[in-house]
Amino acid sequence: MKSLKVGLLGIGTVGGGTYAVLTRNQEEISRRAGCKIEIVKVADRNLELAKKLTNGQVEVTDDVMSIVTDPNVDVVVELIGGYTLAKDAILKAIEHGKHVVTANKALIATHGNEIFAAAKAKGVIVAFEAAVAGGIPIIKALREGLVANKIEWIAGIINGTTNFILTEMRDKGLAFSDVLGEAQRLGYAEADPTFDVEGIDAAHKLMIMSAIGFGIPMQFDKVYTEGITKLESKDIRYAEELGYRVKLLGMTKHSANGIEIRVHPTLIPEKRLIANVNGAMNAVVVKGDAVGPTLYYGAGAGSEPTASSVIADLVDVARMQNTSIQDRVPYLAYHDISATENTPILPISEISTAYYLRMRASDKPGVLAEVTKILGDRQISIDAMMQKEPQDGETEADIVILTHITVEKNMNAAIQAIEALPAIDGAVVKLRMEELNK
Amino acid sequence: MKSLKVGLLGIGTVGGGTYAVLTRNQEEISRRAGCKIEIVKVADRNLELAKKLTNGQVEVTDDVMSIVTDPNVDVVVELIGGYTLAKDAILKAIEHGKHVVTANKALIATHGNEIFAAAKAKGVIVAFEAAVAGGIPIIKALREGLVANKIEWIAGIINGTTNFILTEMRDKGLAFSDVLGEAQRLGYAEADPTFDVEGIDAAHKLMIMSAIGFGIPMQFDKVYTEGITKLESKDIRYAEELGYRVKLLGMTKHSANGIEIRVHPTLIPEKRLIANVNGAMNAVVVKGDAVGPTLYYGAGAGSEPTASSVIADLVDVARMQNTSIQDRVPYLAYHDISATENTPILPISEISTAYYLRMRASDKPGVLAEVTKILGDRQISIDAMMQKEPQDGETEADIVILTHITVEKNMNAAIQAIEALPAIDGAVVKLRMEELNK
Repeated sequence: MKSLKVGLLGIGTVGGGTYAVLTRNQEEISRRAGCKIEIVKVADRNLELAKKLTNGQVEVTDDVMSIVTDPNVDVVVELIGGYTLAKDAILKAIEHGKHVVTANKALIATHGNEIFAAAKAKGVIVAFEAAVAGGIPIIKALREGLVANKIEWIAGIINGTTNFILTEMRDKGLAFSDVLGEAQRLGYAEADPTFDVEGIDAAHKLMIMSAIGFGIPMQFDKVYTEGITKLESKDIRYAEELGYRVKLLGMTKHSANGIEIRVHPTLIPEKRLIANVNGAMNAVVVKGDAVGPTLYYGAGAGSEPTASSVIADLVDVARMQNTSIQDRVPYLAYHDISATENTPILPISEISTAYYLRMRASDKPGVLAEVTKILGDRQISIDAMMQKEPQDGETEADIVILTHITVEKNMNAAIQAIEALPAIDGAVVKLRMEELNK
Repeated sequence: MKSLKVGLLGIGTVGGGTYAVLTRNQEEISRRAGCKIEIVKVADRNLELAKKLTNGQVEVTDDVMSIVTDPNVDVVVELIGGYTLAKDAILKAIEHGKHVVTANKALIATHGNEIFAAAKAKGVIVAFEAAVAGGIPIIKALREGLVANKIEWIAGIINGTTNFILTEMRDKGLAFSDVLGEAQRLGYAEADPTFDVEGIDAAHKLMIMSAIGFGIPMQFDKVYTEGITKLESKDIRYAEELGYRVKLLGMTKHSANGIEIRVHPTLIPEKRLIANVNGAMNAVVVKGDAVGPTLYYGAGAGSEPTASSVIADLVDVARMQNTSIQDRVPYLAYHDISATENTPILPISEISTAYYLRMRASDKPGVLAEVTKILGDRQISIDAMMQKEPQDGETEADIVILTHITVEKNMNAAIQAIEALPAIDGAVVKLRMEELNK
């Protein structure tokens, strides 16, 4: 039986899982791949750990570059993470004619164009199923399973940390900061949680899915990113009363004027399946013109779930390595992206969506009329409205309004006018809403 | 640009959708496939329809065999359905060295072994993504996306007609027979609904998924199949009160003694995502040892959703046609199934699951003690129990019991003993339950 010789860069959480699953399921994997997938060399800063995990079965080194240049290695698996060493290693591996498998979403979303160009020039594969939504085979679904479709939009809960936090905020009525501490204690959030809670990690994954869905190059600087740190549990409660759940949603859509790519807290109708994805789980809904909506759900992170995707990529490499580049699945789904690369990415002010607004108003007659006039003047239709009674001793009450779809800059102008009303106290809270039904 | 020349057999619902989507999305599909997918010839009994739908752009014929032997055709798409002509056409196409794409679940589940053997001998591809769960790319997920995993079980709502009927029975509290009529009027059920409501269609799809998940040959005669025609809406209501939904579930599991393959009405906890798949939609949960549970959801039937999968298969054929058979994805996931083909398929009496029991009992002291003793004597633990008050003027009441997991033959023996109790009136209703959480 043929053998695919793998050099593994990094044997931490995902690397350790990859080694463990490849070893444990060796028989099934070989019988399916028609080829043995064999880790022949491992690089890690922690040599002792690498030796312990590989049990003396594999050559270990702390020199990453000795693997990417090793003539005995067919494919390099990059699980180091970050931008510098990972990028150097991948480009050097490509230069030496090696195929690459990576779980590095940040690197692909920001330096993917350069990496794919180098890989194309050398005729090697760069596979990254593990970079988006962990163990869910969403890259394969988008690039192959839905190949017949014009993709209309993709919406995903693609960060487990924030979904865990939002689930806890809802279930227990706690504030963001209280739940964050709990998430850190339980290992669902890192000591510095910025990448997750500010939506940057989700934005990386969304950029990759958008590029594949619409055949556009990576342009991470144009992704709109808003995290959950300012989200109040009061708004989660009000949304619930109106039949919605609040999720950190990555949304990319091909609309008439261009492509929207945005990550922000989003109200979703509670009857949608994706609104019921809780805890650290991930899910992605893809809307194709032929197939309609399809949904993919599973573990978005973790040692063995992510390893599951790394190994699926290795089997793809084993199968495709002997084919010409024209017979392979293209990096970003399209063989030639020049036909679409000039499609504009819309700034957030130009996107269209529905909105949830919450404001604090004097409990006096006429306030609601003033607010609704401002919206009506700007052709913003109201879908639902809810006025909360003032608490004992208070003279102000919360007003919540759900609107129909409008352009964001129009909504921002309306909000500015509402905030200028004497009866309105402080800023208007604005959250975006997606029905996800067409 | 290269071109893949397609001969289409049958231009009804799915064939018409395939033609329409290939025409409408020609540009996207070519840019992704690196090759043009071109229907060059269409066969249909209804020549007029074929001419009308193809608008004079394509040669049409009513002679299926003239396409499968045509040297100008690279791949035959079989959308005739049924066993006789479809099977003859596929075998003849293979004999003539053509690749085959089919949506024919009945044929693959019953004659797949013969078809795959013939295809292997001739070195051609037989692809059948559209045969299971319509537009959901579940075959690709199972064969490729989850290739790293030992598959532990697969559970699917894979028949839209029955899921529509069950959803209506629950929402409106109606009887099966009342809803069936409505489903027929709305086009969700056929005039002769036997294949759907008796679970046979679901059983075909489940057999195919089981073969791929566990690397076993087709053995449809060993699939246990129980439909929804005898299901009473009372049991749907009681299940609901206990926190469960009733779904027609296809369940295949690799347990210690062998493989279970069974289709039957099943109680599923309402908090599972799959319990909330309603109407005519389909969903499949796959449990892999590395990835954990993943779920795939979408339209399980219909013209363009099914066409989406047919075309995905055509693109795969375009990509794989120049590779050796060893570099292709194997028909049933494994290159060599001899290592697993002797794994026994368990008869229904040997499967293990939890149960819902409903019985009608005299409203007298001591009855419950007698029933629980019978269960206890057979080591069947009770998970929950519910006794309904007798209606006005009645002397009997419904007792509902949820049990922990036991072997079916043990449960059957207990039921026989319960039915023999003088205080129990009539047969005990038995439904199977699956927690789907590990």
